[in-house]
Amino acid sequence: MNKKDRQDGPRAYGLVCGKLPTGQFNSLSDVPGVKLGHFTLADGEVQTGITVILPHGRNMFQDKLPAACRVFNGFGKSVGLVQLEELGCIESPIFLTNTFSVPVCIEGGLDLLLEDNQDIADSTGSANIVVMECNDAHLSDMRKRSIKREHVAAAINNAKIAQPDFARGAVGAGRGMSCYSLKGGIGTASRLVAIEKEAASFCLGALVLSNFGKLSDLNILGRKIGLEVSALPGKREVTQSSMLASKAEKSAGSGAGTGKPGDGSVIVVLATDAPLDSRQLKRICGRAASGLARTGAFVSGGSGEIALAFSTANTIPHYPDKAVLTQSLLHEEYLDGFFEAVTEAVEEAVLDSLFCAETVHGRAGHVRYALRDFGLYTRLEAGNTRIC
Amino acid sequence: MNKKDRQDGPRAYGLVCGKLPTGQFNSLSDVPGVKLGHFTLADGEVQTGITVILPHGRNMFQDKLPAACRVFNGFGKSVGLVQLEELGCIESPIFLTNTFSVPVCIEGGLDLLLEDNQDIADSTGSANIVVMECNDAHLSDMRKRSIKREHVAAAINNAKIAQPDFARGAVGAGRGMSCYSLKGGIGTASRLVAIEKEAASFCLGALVLSNFGKLSDLNILGRKIGLEVSALPGKREVTQSSMLASKAEKSAGSGAGTGKPGDGSVIVVLATDAPLDSRQLKRICGRAASGLARTGAFVSGGSGEIALAFSTANTIPHYPDKAVLTQSLLHEEYLDGFFEAVTEAVEEAVLDSLFCAETVHGRAGHVRYALRDFGLYTRLEAGNTRIC
Amino acid sequence: MNKKDRQDGPRAYGLVCGKLPTGQFNSLSDVPGVKLGHFTLADGEVQTGITVILPHGRNMFQDKLPAACRVFNGFGKSVGLVQLEELGCIESPIFLTNTFSVPVCIEGGLDLLLEDNQDIADSTGSANIVVMECNDAHLSDMRKRSIKREHVAAAINNAKIAQPDFARGAVGAGRGMSCYSLKGGIGTASRLVAIEKEAASFCLGALVLSNFGKLSDLNILGRKIGLEVSALPGKREVTQSSMLASKAEKSAGSGAGTGKPGDGSVIVVLATDAPLDSRQLKRICGRAASGLARTGAFVSGGSGEIALAFSTANTIPHYPDKAVLTQSLLHEEYLDGFFEAVTEAVEEAVLDSLFCAETVHGRAGHVRYALRDFGLYTRLEAGNTRIC
Amino acid sequence: MNKKDRQDGPRAYGLVCGKLPTGQFNSLSDVPGVKLGHFTLADGEVQTGITVILPHGRNMFQDKLPAACRVFNGFGKSVGLVQLEELGCIESPIFLTNTFSVPVCIEGGLDLLLEDNQDIADSTGSANIVVMECNDAHLSDMRKRSIKREHVAAAINNAKIAQPDFARGAVGAGRGMSCYSLKGGIGTASRLVAIEKEAASFCLGALVLSNFGKLSDLNILGRKIGLEVSALPGKREVTQSSMLASKAEKSAGSGAGTGKPGDGSVIVVLATDAPLDSRQLKRICGRAASGLARTGAFVSGGSGEIALAFSTANTIPHYPDKAVLTQSLLHEEYLDGFFEAVTEAVEEAVLDSLFCAETVHGRAGHVRYALRDFGLYTRLEAGNTRIC
Repeated sequence: MNKKDRQDGPRAYGLVCGKLPTGQFNSLSDVPGVKLGHFTLADGEVQTGITVILPHGRNMFQDKLPAACRVFNGFGKSVGLVQLEELGCIESPIFLTNTFSVPVCIEGGLDLLLEDNQDIADSTGSANIVVMECNDAHLSDMRKRSIKREHVAAAINNAKIAQPDFARGAVGAGRGMSCYSLKGGIGTASRLVAIEKEAASFCLGALVLSNFGKLSDLNILGRKIGLEVSALPGKREVTQSSMLASKAEKSAGSGAGTGKPGDGSVIVVLATDAPLDSRQLKRICGRAASGLARTGAFVSGGSGEIALAFSTANTIPHYPDKAVLTQSLLHEEYLDGFFEAVTEAVEEAVLDSLFCAETVHGRAGHVRYALRDFGLYTRLEAGNTRIC
Repeated sequence: MNKKDRQDGPRAYGLVCGKLPTGQFNSLSDVPGVKLGHFTLADGEVQTGITVILPHGRNMFQDKLPAACRVFNGFGKSVGLVQLEELGCIESPIFLTNTFSVPVCIEGGLDLLLEDNQDIADSTGSANIVVMECNDAHLSDMRKRSIKREHVAAAINNAKIAQPDFARGAVGAGRGMSCYSLKGGIGTASRLVAIEKEAASFCLGALVLSNFGKLSDLNILGRKIGLEVSALPGKREVTQSSMLASKAEKSAGSGAGTGKPGDGSVIVVLATDAPLDSRQLKRICGRAASGLARTGAFVSGGSGEIALAFSTANTIPHYPDKAVLTQSLLHEEYLDGFFEAVTEAVEEAVLDSLFCAETVHGRAGHVRYALRDFGLYTRLEAGNTRIC
Repeated sequence: MNKKDRQDGPRAYGLVCGKLPTGQFNSLSDVPGVKLGHFTLADGEVQTGITVILPHGRNMFQDKLPAACRVFNGFGKSVGLVQLEELGCIESPIFLTNTFSVPVCIEGGLDLLLEDNQDIADSTGSANIVVMECNDAHLSDMRKRSIKREHVAAAINNAKIAQPDFARGAVGAGRGMSCYSLKGGIGTASRLVAIEKEAASFCLGALVLSNFGKLSDLNILGRKIGLEVSALPGKREVTQSSMLASKAEKSAGSGAGTGKPGDGSVIVVLATDAPLDSRQLKRICGRAASGLARTGAFVSGGSGEIALAFSTANTIPHYPDKAVLTQSLLHEEYLDGFFEAVTEAVEEAVLDSLFCAETVHGRAGHVRYALRDFGLYTRLEAGNTRIC
Repeated sequence: MNKKDRQDGPRAYGLVCGKLPTGQFNSLSDVPGVKLGHFTLADGEVQTGITVILPHGRNMFQDKLPAACRVFNGFGKSVGLVQLEELGCIESPIFLTNTFSVPVCIEGGLDLLLEDNQDIADSTGSANIVVMECNDAHLSDMRKRSIKREHVAAAINNAKIAQPDFARGAVGAGRGMSCYSLKGGIGTASRLVAIEKEAASFCLGALVLSNFGKLSDLNILGRKIGLEVSALPGKREVTQSSMLASKAEKSAGSGAGTGKPGDGSVIVVLATDAPLDSRQLKRICGRAASGLARTGAFVSGGSGEIALAFSTANTIPHYPDKAVLTQSLLHEEYLDGFFEAVTEAVEEAVLDSLFCAETVHGRAGHVRYALRDFGLYTRLEAGNTRIC
């Protein structure tokens, strides 16, 4: 039994998405070498942070990795995707943060890469920093731009010393995020994909920064929990939350053009140790949409939804020893297992972000209640066999 | 009460996808002017056909319509999408058929357009015929290429005289298609989207040609019906079907690279009378993926999944009276209603294709059983409140 | 000296595009294994044909090749590109023909693949036929759809027995095509790209089906030859041609919306034996635009312009022996030589199509004069040092 | 005669690209309402700056404009394009700068938008800042990140008070840029497109930030000037430059993977007052590639090349009065004039950047010589009739 099964996350309550086995920690970090660290600011009107993913522990600029992305709904301000798409590789850590902290994360990413690579912008070219974001303005005063360069450095350092059972929920970039009008944020899951023919098994890890959906759409393993939350009698928190949720839904309902707080977004990061090239990773990204949809949302106009995937199996040296490299490549025939793994892991990662999050009081008296505050754990657990 | 509520489709059993109201017939043809006709070949080893959609009743080449498409998984042989994407409009009927009948449908489309437009390829340019397809080789001997040009003409004629409550299920292009290892094919649904500000209401109609998914993934309104079908005790048909399904799953599981029969595909056609331009229609197409995902599948590698959408609100004349046209355009702010409508209508259209289909015996002793043969109608109806 | 230097093509007159060395025949077929065959119909009102490219001499469905395409202007009806893009490979010959013969080429392609592969649509999936086209209606009665399935078979057979110095100009699919209001059609060129580090050299071959541009834009190695043709005094042919050209320009000038005859299109096919994957091949395709632009045109609205590239270095088996393949891959660092090669070869291939073409009299009294009929060979040769 | 004809730019020497008439100042600012300002840092090792384009003089967030972009080669770090593509509009000024000053320009853009719009990230959504960049590390110490937020504000203020005959060459974002191994930077041109049918005329303006190409490829109106520069005997500057150029070419030749200084990039911004929607603007962007190619380059792997276009004819209100807007839209039939205008204007804008630039001495003793230092003005002028 892994740590998550014991303490938190949907599996702690018997909720299992799909049928594939998980990695050791049911986490993005089950992919060997992938590390993740947070920096969190939680102080009154400011509830925000940074989450940094290190695709491997070495110098990313020197040893790039095959990567791809897919934009389901481009209402978003992520950076670095144009070059990632063209060259099919990633050469920096992946930074997740709030919308207005994208530039400071680029600066922090440059700080790291320029220090580690004196050749950048001197004897060699520039560097492509990847930053992805959601809008946490509902809970956090994003206009203050409170994240500073030293915070980015702190997040990177935290990633370097991170353990695979990293914190999830209202932490790091997830601190101020909302999901289905509840408290969302960071969630993760992983799946193992067996290739019988080779007696081999690969790992697919998913991480989400969840900040999308409205309460009435929330679907947990086929059960419209969002509607039940609204309807639950009695408890003070529930009433409050229902009122807020109702209010949130009204504003969320007013649409994409204005992109109001609550309009959401979700970022999905996928990692695998299977030898996939950038085209295959782009196909892998596509299935994140299926996983997200299983949780009930319909990709509202203002919800920027983007998936990014990388593979650790082959590295692409910045300075190659020879012109023609030899690479391993999974035959297309064997992708279906990964497609299923992505769907399952992304669904579970979204639920994980909901189950792990604590209630957060933020800007302008706004509150996002934790799913756990509704006592739904118990109810879901009891109803487990019915739900699955 | 509309006709479908009485006779067939998921609503006949109390199964309702989502919360938006439907159009009069809960059909693609609820969008004024949109017509649809079938031609079916059902003879032993050959179980196939054509379905033709006329976006309006006039000359499509002379009065083009704004249109867009989105490829979720490009394992498919649809034609006409390159130009449709570039010019943002459609100028022919939309033909649905089996993979190897794509060329004959182009020929049939040209027959129609060349007869109606003597200027084509004489004093003016050529014409872009749109044909979309799924692979029905599991039930039908596709290698025979049994569809002929006169069959295309027959389907067009049937479309011209069609009623809004057109036949669904194992008919037209849907004759030989499989969905979740059951009998699939043609399904439809529609939704009304109210714009309170304008006291206006628009219609969004969806049509699917369903040929995707495996039984164990089938999810009907949150219930994993596919697993229940496999598990049901007793009835002869069930046993047979379970065995076949099991077999189908095994072959379907072997992946995208070879694109075996059973690997599927699904085509979604969306129509609306709202004034949307091609960019907005492309966004509309994106949400079809959410509707498909709600029914349980994960877009397997060999499942070509494509959505196409058109709007009937503005026409684009081939020979314009003046250089600068005046067009109506819905503000982006108001798209969310349509995004939700697409998700609901596509989910329901897939279920509709399953509920309306009859069992078909086809090529090489292959059988695809109808969902209705399992007596699940009754069970689902009884469980209605629990499911929704 | 190779055959083309002696007889025809721009090099016969001292006109050299760029500085890289050519392959042995300065032809697409310089890439080992690539073969090309024509079938031509030249009879009064019908001046059209088919050109077939065999990427290798074996069974394309069993041994697929990495491939990619890029659409510069999607006013075109090519088929097979959706799947080619998704799966990053090609599994059929490449057929070039007139717009309305696309469906018969699909049929002919299926004839070949179904005969060679009894498993298609039986125990395995369907097959993706790639057909690319230009509109030759100015010279040929395209409405007659004169190309038949047996003609496709003939073209395939011709390809199988073809020599590297295949015929160019007004032949095969190029029979009825117009380029810069002159006679265009099939042109080819190749370049060798040396990788010093490896003491290795790869070949990049280009083939164009040229049917674009208007006379006044024609630019041969920096000289606006089109304007000179219009201005040349004296000769009867010139006068006629100038009048026709003038007329052609007027109609061509009226734009993309109607896609009139003369509005053009150009198809570029690129082959290489360098180990490039589909993403790199897509980058390779991009540089075809630079080569086309050097000849003077600006991609008019009605000119469908598409490039397709494939690599013969790695094959992708339909039935793989093992799940994880080992592939060679050129490091991105070394692509620039290929980018330059594409630009040079595509520019030269367009000129080649002009220099090799003969005058063709076709439909409705339309004539497209050969560049060679203007005696410009002599003048260009004399002016050689000034031009280059 | 306009100012540019008198003082600088290719027309001062009789060099005319194409045949369409120019706007009053042959400048991006000929499109009514479009303004442009620079901020320049020129101090020893730091030779860099910012150029800001204001698409109109009002609040861009409140009154968005239809826009589109096209990535020819995505080796670049521009930001804001994902949302611009999805929503088809632009809601901020356009910032041009060096690669590592992208984040500070986002900050500066937010400074402006947040001050002008108190609703952003409070009662409404976030804002999408568009920043495009080239790498000027050859001449400027980019690692210092010398551009500060106040510099961005200064550039915006300069734009607000700018005149249509703004400075070009080694100024603003162009200060440290290299073009064809010579001094490049900011260049502009415009064209008028007449629609006879409507007795109307529209303006198309182009601005380039040129930082691409190698000397031997430079092509000025069909003449390989780059080769002549290398070959010119005598003058000291020439010798130096040739040596540097030769050195530059060697490093530039080593390819995209490392993205060394000199590897370039070029940004094209297009503006028009014609009523084009985002799809049409995307088509417009495509023709920038033809204009760039006419100057000789082939899009090297490390040369990020991106075009962005916007139209001032229709505005898209952030808070619409009603759901259904009425918009003017040019019929597709009439786009060819704009396609030709883009090609001509972009070619001329690149030459303009070369002709207007002064020699700049920068980082590490690197020098980029001005084209004018070679005395080629005189030679080109003399050769004028031969060249055009």
